[in-house]
Amino acid sequence: MSQHTQQIRIYYEDTDAGGIVYYANYLKFAERARTEWLRSLGFSQQHLRTALGISFVVKSCHADYHAPAFLDDAIIVNTRIDEQRKAGFSVAQQVMREDVLLCTITVVIICVNADMKPIRIPDAITQAIRAWQSTV
Amino acid sequence: MSQHTQQIRIYYEDTDAGGIVYYANYLKFAERARTEWLRSLGFSQQHLRTALGISFVVKSCHADYHAPAFLDDAIIVNTRIDEQRKAGFSVAQQVMREDVLLCTITVVIICVNADMKPIRIPDAITQAIRAWQSTV
Amino acid sequence: MSQHTQQIRIYYEDTDAGGIVYYANYLKFAERARTEWLRSLGFSQQHLRTALGISFVVKSCHADYHAPAFLDDAIIVNTRIDEQRKAGFSVAQQVMREDVLLCTITVVIICVNADMKPIRIPDAITQAIRAWQSTV
Amino acid sequence: MSQHTQQIRIYYEDTDAGGIVYYANYLKFAERARTEWLRSLGFSQQHLRTALGISFVVKSCHADYHAPAFLDDAIIVNTRIDEQRKAGFSVAQQVMREDVLLCTITVVIICVNADMKPIRIPDAITQAIRAWQSTV
Repeated sequence: MSQHTQQIRIYYEDTDAGGIVYYANYLKFAERARTEWLRSLGFSQQHLRTALGISFVVKSCHADYHAPAFLDDAIIVNTRIDEQRKAGFSVAQQVMREDVLLCTITVVIICVNADMKPIRIPDAITQAIRAWQSTV
Repeated sequence: MSQHTQQIRIYYEDTDAGGIVYYANYLKFAERARTEWLRSLGFSQQHLRTALGISFVVKSCHADYHAPAFLDDAIIVNTRIDEQRKAGFSVAQQVMREDVLLCTITVVIICVNADMKPIRIPDAITQAIRAWQSTV
Repeated sequence: MSQHTQQIRIYYEDTDAGGIVYYANYLKFAERARTEWLRSLGFSQQHLRTALGISFVVKSCHADYHAPAFLDDAIIVNTRIDEQRKAGFSVAQQVMREDVLLCTITVVIICVNADMKPIRIPDAITQAIRAWQSTV
Repeated sequence: MSQHTQQIRIYYEDTDAGGIVYYANYLKFAERARTEWLRSLGFSQQHLRTALGISFVVKSCHADYHAPAFLDDAIIVNTRIDEQRKAGFSVAQQVMREDVLLCTITVVIICVNADMKPIRIPDAITQAIRAWQSTV
């Protein structure tokens, strides 16, 4: 199954007074990884917004926290596409430090127009995702 | 059912280039509301950490995004306790702008010691939560 | 001299692994205070953007850090207008915890149109600021 | 003059409803760059904190905003050491998108112990900085 891997470094800005990464920040890391995955397919968020008038927005997300990340940790975010529909797709993401699973995140993404109305994902993007899925 | 209500204002820092509140920031709002709910019961996070050596950490969370919040919106976060166990509890939160439901968030919280090991919630806190639950 | 006072509470999201408020977050607090000061004069940032097509943006800022703020601190931000010109103004802000000065921030704000070009501040705003300045 | 260069990508999390990078976030970028510069000299922030009981904290900072950064921009942060004293140093940083200067930031850093008291920078660090300064 095709998987995108994004490296991320933990800085002071990501941590909190508990000495660990603040729980909401894993969603930032997940979004960085999805953005880089899309960019690797040839689509930047800014291009989608300004040229095509569309955005991908999060409809729902679920995060399970297994172990904390700490300052200076080098982590990775693995991203897979679980299910693709006409107006969106489901993304399964894992945040890891070496072979330690820190957090699993499942996100449902939908495609919306400038008025935030759900629309069908442009064919070029759907096809690029399918082509990427079929690579091993 | 007992419910805590927290008012929050949306500032530039909360929004993104899509013109709406960034999806991870709803988790910040939810945590502010939980913190103020705990404070209203007589417990501050700092006191828990320094005096009792415990923290409440998020084990999992789920967010459904129904409608976006915008710059300058005055929103509220409603917080209810769904289920209470020995080492944690489940919290149901709603983010609203007047009578528009923006986001629902379910969070499982556990109590941990300074080594991040799950421990039984101190009786004083359990009792304060039960007393609050039984008020109408 | 007229002064606006904004109360702010420190949450986990504001702190870092050093156990104190992260240095960039004082600029968020300062911006919240400026936004509430403007709102108290009758102008919301969203209204300025959508109705008048203008924004106030930061041209420069300077922060001196005197003492750290901690989790759960109740702080205030005091805001004064130091100097007003045609296209902007200079704001002096103090972040305090009771009578302890935590941080002083000086910000130069300019008024820009939708293309980010500096423009003269609308008269209604200039007059409202002058009227506020002359109250004691 | 020795200079460290850090590449940074702009994500949704960095932008605000004005469509540009939020002004406080340049301080995050600057701190990431300083952290990577220190790491390139052999010192991680976490190591300093846990092994040596010291941290580098910001005493003051000044930022001039010249041009905005946008979603998806690939920017760099250039970092130079301007002046080194016993308990701290002054850092000059430039944020650029290709040859466009976006922001200049000057930061005064001091070395503190676990009680936040200023202390002399450990010799190993001072020497590493001097050695780096003398490379061309």
